[in-house]
Amino acid sequence: MASARRLTSLAALALSLPSAAPALAPARAVRRGTLRPPRVQMSSSPDVRRFLTKPRDQRTEGFLMQQTMLRVKDPVKSLEFYCDGLGFNLLMYREFPQWGFNVYFVAPVAPERIPESAEEQWKLCMNTPGCIELTWNHGTEAEEGKVYNTGNSDTTGTQDGQKVRGGFGHLGITVPDVYEACERFQSLGYEFTKTPNSGGMKGLAFIKDPDGYLVEILPQGPMVTKPVDCAGVAVDGGGGYKDNSK
Amino acid sequence: MASARRLTSLAALALSLPSAAPALAPARAVRRGTLRPPRVQMSSSPDVRRFLTKPRDQRTEGFLMQQTMLRVKDPVKSLEFYCDGLGFNLLMYREFPQWGFNVYFVAPVAPERIPESAEEQWKLCMNTPGCIELTWNHGTEAEEGKVYNTGNSDTTGTQDGQKVRGGFGHLGITVPDVYEACERFQSLGYEFTKTPNSGGMKGLAFIKDPDGYLVEILPQGPMVTKPVDCAGVAVDGGGGYKDNSK
Repeated sequence: MASARRLTSLAALALSLPSAAPALAPARAVRRGTLRPPRVQMSSSPDVRRFLTKPRDQRTEGFLMQQTMLRVKDPVKSLEFYCDGLGFNLLMYREFPQWGFNVYFVAPVAPERIPESAEEQWKLCMNTPGCIELTWNHGTEAEEGKVYNTGNSDTTGTQDGQKVRGGFGHLGITVPDVYEACERFQSLGYEFTKTPNSGGMKGLAFIKDPDGYLVEILPQGPMVTKPVDCAGVAVDGGGGYKDNSK
Repeated sequence: MASARRLTSLAALALSLPSAAPALAPARAVRRGTLRPPRVQMSSSPDVRRFLTKPRDQRTEGFLMQQTMLRVKDPVKSLEFYCDGLGFNLLMYREFPQWGFNVYFVAPVAPERIPESAEEQWKLCMNTPGCIELTWNHGTEAEEGKVYNTGNSDTTGTQDGQKVRGGFGHLGITVPDVYEACERFQSLGYEFTKTPNSGGMKGLAFIKDPDGYLVEILPQGPMVTKPVDCAGVAVDGGGGYKDNSK
């Protein structure tokens, strides 16, 4: 269990064994990406182990978590980020001029697997878990500044300019090597809210997409660290834990 | 191309061929899940076909879209919805009492595939595309009413009680049979914002999770319809197109 307020390695996080025993939140708990600090609260962690092992209801056989839909200001900028930057491809898109919007489905699928016919593209897309549906409402590309609230204590899209307690936090992309991936993102000029060695959680990063949505970069294997990251931050530096969703 | 304002079947949608030619948004375009109606705007649909066929940059080899993180008020209610309701299992969870939050990763993975050790659970989770990371900030379960803004013209979490132009739209689950799945959701008492035959898009549905996040239910094969849906709505009824993200 990661007991220190400052973690020097996320290996501790990856291996931390959850406990079914009640845990008490500290008086000055750091809450993950919410607007207001909590009142002092005693929360018991519920015992959720049954959800690990429960048999699948046969009536849900084959269900897939296929898409996360995000609205984007400018679809070409988003496609450049997710396709050119993250290595995704466009699996399928649909235009609805009669309703004023287009949708673009992207996923990390090899281009040679993407069929040419619209019917087959649809079928592949609907059977590919973890697609992102980018929705473009015509006209937003011509608006000034940010258009949509990103969910992370963001003032965009409000009437009063005050932060919103948003529910959506981030997308998470796992990669074979976080440090190498981040070197590349750095060279592409992407904005980081956390480089791998910054903050208290070492070995993961957060970048922003063109609309400001957070994208977490995580390893597919054990949480390993390197002495220096793409921003020149040493693994024994970079400060303590902070909520990087904000 | 679906040219009518009222679609009688989403087969037309599934098979509609996108055009690279500029499309003009109508003066009274219905925008997808945004707060304000657009100003009259002439938007040209960009030619995005290169994103279908572009070769994958080798430096992105193996990248996965692994997670979508949503904050939830009460983790047990959310786990009941996603695990008992949608047939997902809990792949991995971590408790951070020192920081006041827990995270729960769920995905539609057969329970017999979920290892017992924390290290192996981590590895499986990080290599499973399309997980949902449910984040519980301790204490929210004791707050009254809704806690988080859902992204869809929602007033929750604002200072002034006015709607927010949110970016996150929905999660999308694909299933072998939308009508059968919805019969079950109906029997479980889940709230629908659209049953399969309601609205103008026939054959897909929207339900709400315990925090009010929208979950779209879509078919894995061709878009087929049935004469009557779980709410007794006939396929030739149910009204014309409306934006069901709102």
